[in-house]
Amino acid sequence: MDITFNNDPKLALLLPILYHAWQDNELSTNEYKAIANFINNQDWLTKAEKEFLKSKINADVPPSRSELFQWREKIETAFAGGAKAASLTDLGILIANAERPALNEEDIKNYAPGVAQLEQQFGIIGSEAIADYRPKGKTLTQQHNTQNSFDIAEMTAFLDGDNANIINKVKSIISREEFNPVVDPDVTAFREKVLDWCKVLAKEGLGGYAYPKAQGGQGDMEAYFAIMETLSYQDLSLVIKFGVQFGLWGMSILFLGTEKHHKKYLEQIGSLELPGCFAMTETHHGSNVKGIHTTATYNHATRSFIVNTPEKYDRKEYIGNAATHGEAATVFAKLVIDGKDYGVNAFIVPIRNIEKQVLPGITIEDCGHKMGLNGVDNGIIYFDNVEIPYENMLDKFASVSEDGAFESSIPSDNRRFFTMLGTLVGGRIGIPRSALAAGKTGLATAIKYSDKRRQFGPEGGNEVPILNYRMHQKRLMPYLSNAYALTFALQYLTKRFINRSEDDMQEIEALAAGLKSYTTWNVRDMLQECREACGGKGYLSENRIDDLKNDTEIYTTFEGDNTVLMQLTAKNRLGEYRKEFGEMNVSTIFNYVVEQAKTGITEKNPFATRNTDETHLKDPAFHLQAFKYRERELTASAARRFKKLVDDGLDGFDAANIMHPHMLQISEAYLERIILEQFHAKINGLTDPALSEVLTRLYSLFALNKIDEHKAWYLEQGYMEGVKTKAIRKLVSQLCWETRQDAVPLVDAFNIPKNCLGAIATTKIAQA
Amino acid sequence: MDITFNNDPKLALLLPILYHAWQDNELSTNEYKAIANFINNQDWLTKAEKEFLKSKINADVPPSRSELFQWREKIETAFAGGAKAASLTDLGILIANAERPALNEEDIKNYAPGVAQLEQQFGIIGSEAIADYRPKGKTLTQQHNTQNSFDIAEMTAFLDGDNANIINKVKSIISREEFNPVVDPDVTAFREKVLDWCKVLAKEGLGGYAYPKAQGGQGDMEAYFAIMETLSYQDLSLVIKFGVQFGLWGMSILFLGTEKHHKKYLEQIGSLELPGCFAMTETHHGSNVKGIHTTATYNHATRSFIVNTPEKYDRKEYIGNAATHGEAATVFAKLVIDGKDYGVNAFIVPIRNIEKQVLPGITIEDCGHKMGLNGVDNGIIYFDNVEIPYENMLDKFASVSEDGAFESSIPSDNRRFFTMLGTLVGGRIGIPRSALAAGKTGLATAIKYSDKRRQFGPEGGNEVPILNYRMHQKRLMPYLSNAYALTFALQYLTKRFINRSEDDMQEIEALAAGLKSYTTWNVRDMLQECREACGGKGYLSENRIDDLKNDTEIYTTFEGDNTVLMQLTAKNRLGEYRKEFGEMNVSTIFNYVVEQAKTGITEKNPFATRNTDETHLKDPAFHLQAFKYRERELTASAARRFKKLVDDGLDGFDAANIMHPHMLQISEAYLERIILEQFHAKINGLTDPALSEVLTRLYSLFALNKIDEHKAWYLEQGYMEGVKTKAIRKLVSQLCWETRQDAVPLVDAFNIPKNCLGAIATTKIAQA
Repeated sequence: MDITFNNDPKLALLLPILYHAWQDNELSTNEYKAIANFINNQDWLTKAEKEFLKSKINADVPPSRSELFQWREKIETAFAGGAKAASLTDLGILIANAERPALNEEDIKNYAPGVAQLEQQFGIIGSEAIADYRPKGKTLTQQHNTQNSFDIAEMTAFLDGDNANIINKVKSIISREEFNPVVDPDVTAFREKVLDWCKVLAKEGLGGYAYPKAQGGQGDMEAYFAIMETLSYQDLSLVIKFGVQFGLWGMSILFLGTEKHHKKYLEQIGSLELPGCFAMTETHHGSNVKGIHTTATYNHATRSFIVNTPEKYDRKEYIGNAATHGEAATVFAKLVIDGKDYGVNAFIVPIRNIEKQVLPGITIEDCGHKMGLNGVDNGIIYFDNVEIPYENMLDKFASVSEDGAFESSIPSDNRRFFTMLGTLVGGRIGIPRSALAAGKTGLATAIKYSDKRRQFGPEGGNEVPILNYRMHQKRLMPYLSNAYALTFALQYLTKRFINRSEDDMQEIEALAAGLKSYTTWNVRDMLQECREACGGKGYLSENRIDDLKNDTEIYTTFEGDNTVLMQLTAKNRLGEYRKEFGEMNVSTIFNYVVEQAKTGITEKNPFATRNTDETHLKDPAFHLQAFKYRERELTASAARRFKKLVDDGLDGFDAANIMHPHMLQISEAYLERIILEQFHAKINGLTDPALSEVLTRLYSLFALNKIDEHKAWYLEQGYMEGVKTKAIRKLVSQLCWETRQDAVPLVDAFNIPKNCLGAIATTKIAQA
Repeated sequence: MDITFNNDPKLALLLPILYHAWQDNELSTNEYKAIANFINNQDWLTKAEKEFLKSKINADVPPSRSELFQWREKIETAFAGGAKAASLTDLGILIANAERPALNEEDIKNYAPGVAQLEQQFGIIGSEAIADYRPKGKTLTQQHNTQNSFDIAEMTAFLDGDNANIINKVKSIISREEFNPVVDPDVTAFREKVLDWCKVLAKEGLGGYAYPKAQGGQGDMEAYFAIMETLSYQDLSLVIKFGVQFGLWGMSILFLGTEKHHKKYLEQIGSLELPGCFAMTETHHGSNVKGIHTTATYNHATRSFIVNTPEKYDRKEYIGNAATHGEAATVFAKLVIDGKDYGVNAFIVPIRNIEKQVLPGITIEDCGHKMGLNGVDNGIIYFDNVEIPYENMLDKFASVSEDGAFESSIPSDNRRFFTMLGTLVGGRIGIPRSALAAGKTGLATAIKYSDKRRQFGPEGGNEVPILNYRMHQKRLMPYLSNAYALTFALQYLTKRFINRSEDDMQEIEALAAGLKSYTTWNVRDMLQECREACGGKGYLSENRIDDLKNDTEIYTTFEGDNTVLMQLTAKNRLGEYRKEFGEMNVSTIFNYVVEQAKTGITEKNPFATRNTDETHLKDPAFHLQAFKYRERELTASAARRFKKLVDDGLDGFDAANIMHPHMLQISEAYLERIILEQFHAKINGLTDPALSEVLTRLYSLFALNKIDEHKAWYLEQGYMEGVKTKAIRKLVSQLCWETRQDAVPLVDAFNIPKNCLGAIATTKIAQA
């Protein structure tokens, strides 16, 4: 009788390893030979047994497909009775024992070590290999899913707050079929469509919402921001066109002009009868507005101004509403009287007549096709000695007297300039709110899709929703926590702006500049992850991530380049820090030293830096301490570094150049501390335990994920040790896993109109 | 006589502080009051002096603009003689001494401390404040510029290597006017244009370059990759269309078919007479190709196959060339014989006739508008029991015998499947090479623009090229080093693929999967920085960054989702590690332990972990040690972690899920070690000292920037201490500063055709 796997239990012992060798694709020809060699060297096998086994491991004569099938059947049968095995060797024993004659204890003791050695020698992790053959229970990964642990409508109400009414009104408008987002439009037609959309909004009374009631508005600036934000679910060209017309153009009149201008212009602007532009940026002076070259020269004889573009690249560039629709513009120019330069001021300059013909002395070029926002007609404007009447100077902060003298309540050109710009800080609130709404649209699309889309799964089991994969969660869940965190932070910024006092303004400007940058960068990264998380579907225009991404792309540049704005914020923070330090008297210095020492004792002691207790890691007090420590330490060290560089003889400009990256970190740390505080304050006020639970988890995720992102810095400072940063990383992963269950309800709470979501978010996908 | 700044030197002492308070915009009303209070409390001032000073610091009655001018003049005059001052107080002394009567030593001793106290109390950094008023020499930041330290043509030759001829041929073709990149094309017209471009290339003999000479090709696979890469400067729709036709479609015939298929199809494919598709991906099985549902059922009676799409979402999706041009397709389907499933195999299925009419049984839908690559006609294909002849099975690895039996030299379905896919690994070489060329186009555009674009500058000095800002350098210079590093790494991968042996294949596949992911992610980030670095200009389509970005966006998904591919690479690495460990005998284990101990002694000792010596930090031996340590440690700890998770009772699938992020790091560490080694090997072979110097600097930047990116990990491991990671960060900044001088020549060495660069890279900008 020939020996076979069926009648020789010793052979059966080796069967799982042989099957494993053939079924996977990882062994090379040489490795098959090595197995054969190994078999040759086993003295517990007879010559016949060796020959048989070697015939089964010969790369030139592989077993037939049906033979492999038989082997597999044996393996599965051995497992079927609920038997347990921890390695391929254990499995071999099971098979051997299923055959007659079975092996006894002694046999096993004699033979199994050799088999185990072979298993180990080929780097097989038995427990892993065996998992492929074990009959499947449900894995944790398969069982994870969406829960409904809180009331979605209540969460929406919590998010919308005081602005729920206007938000719902805007949502009902953009839910209309005529507002369905457009895919791949022709640019010319799209510009007209966006203008038409704006007209609908103006007709609904949304245009002049922030203007005084006397000029047909509602005097409600907070609602204006809510409108901008809500429109951003639908189309960002519309938002920007809306913002240029009613925000930049209208509000430059509102804030830089005086009553005569309000009366003459605001109502027409709010109704869109007078489309206009905001002409500040010049080709050669994008971020450096103080350096613009356009002039407005006062003419004593006629009491008029001559607006002029001295050189080609002093032209106004990238001006929204300029290429086709604008009829007038607020133009920023250096006021010149009798050859003397009185700094940047603003003037109303007509650029087209009502038939849309460009006026004499004005030349307009089209900026052409852009990466996104192609529904906005950006243009380039040149002024060739254009005369405008005296009244067209926006004279809130400066004017020219009847006898041609410059007058201003703010003598410093520098200060006047920043005061003027400060009134326009609203743009830096509207933009991040708009960006975040776009980000939420992408996030809702990606999360809802990932909850349904299945791919891969345990051997023999169903495919698993991709949102159940830890890696996928790590890509999306932190952004979900950011989206909530930033919502509250931007609401806080808005309220501070609405209720501002003069003394607040510098801080608010710094905060707005910072949050504008921080949010738009965050949305950039958020939408990038959303695109990739949706794979090829994320690339199809019907799923909207492309437009959301391409439209918001420029948000990191306009209303102030993010890198430049972050420097501004940091400069403000550094200034505040120096003042605080400068004002210190003996008792405040004493307090400061005590505070530093306390940090050393309470936060930087070996117990704290190595504390991995979950209660501690989830404690908001720990988060706030860590965030504050980072902010304070970065600011203090920047002050020290800067002083040292200059003391060492470096020019201040060179020193500042070296400090740029450090300054960015100061801003980031400051902003994150504010965001953290606002998130925490917001959930502190919650009474519904279900909302509170889910938002507290999201808050912890936000806080710990940020600490995890900055762990290199914390480690460098000795504020945490590796054991703690590793524990935090693990906890972040766990919080992502838990948040996944609330993810769909959490994005549903944004209550984004269905027609604004990507198609994959709303189409039912058949289960694979 | 009234007291004035002119006749009372005590007052002059305070003038700089008063000017500083008014000229900047940082003090609040309260702070002006605080200054007034401070003045009130100074007993070295007379009552009259106090009143005068307080009148100058009254927020309600600010000094006039002309008065501020006078103050400024005094300050500048005091400085004019080359006098030195370190604070506003020093400056005050200078002014006081410029007036009559001057202050004597005693006076200064009496008065100056009070002034200094005021300066300090308001957080003014004197040395910084004063820098604004000091007459300007040239700052370092202004003087920095482009140098020509090496021969650009020589660098180009070095980069192109053996493929210079074919690269130059392709460049000369795409430099033709008819190949000028198109902005905002109509999709339908663009698809035809791209097809026409492909026809020109086919006519030039570039289509079948990789095919055997017998089929009209050159048998030169390496040149094929060089063609794909070079075309990528021009238009990526063209590259993908080219790759679908000549690569995927043609090479599936070449590698999966046998001689009869080669003879019948290859020449027609290379000449583009027979446009075809590669139909693998299904809607429900994107990354999980093994799980596809399309069937090819063998019909014994007719010796034919019936190709069928069982359910709606089993359709082939995202198939290039399918929506309009393809006449046939390589279709991947499960082979079924007598109800038995024999795994995934490939079949040629005609889909259109020569008049481009879709054939019976075939339904094709258009994927519609995409984020990019709109010149490629992606489509969806459904098969309704389409019959194809027996010969249409691509039978290199499996076939059906005359009597209807399945035959294969590779019995395991799994292994056969991976062997089939392995032959198609070329796609994962062509794609990253294409991506990198696109990244270089963006990088060249951004760097050349940043070298010319000026913005901001020292007070009173010229504006500075933005590439002179450290922050800007930090954004672009590391990507420049990556671009060079990846060029060499991808050339290495290509050569390994060309010269592969069977035993090499698994490693090459892992390397290709990894480098595809690593490169495309890198290019994604590179182009993002390029866009932002060019500000608003980066958003204009004429500058090409939008198309480069949007077209390459999907590179991170197609040819295998990056996240999935990185897992594959890591799995291979982990397998290799286990084998190595499994094969260890007593002597290798001894060596391993010795090796570990040596690391402890040489790399992890307190001197090494704190070594900030520049020679050490720039030493390639240090870089390689650090990269290897990371790779080894991440792999070893993954093996331990995985074993522990499974030993603790977790299902293998759940354990793998938890390990995904760790696995990604393994791949990254492995890839970076390879990239580092190849970069170093490449410059080691250089004989020209100028090339060697600039590339060695770029190499150091690459190595140290990567270590800086991973410093959190190194700190967690105790491999470096904070003092060392900080020194590395500083050195990276310094290397960026130095590399900036070579940046323009370094991108010029890519020798990208002028018409392919963004307009801003080639337009002269007038100096501001």
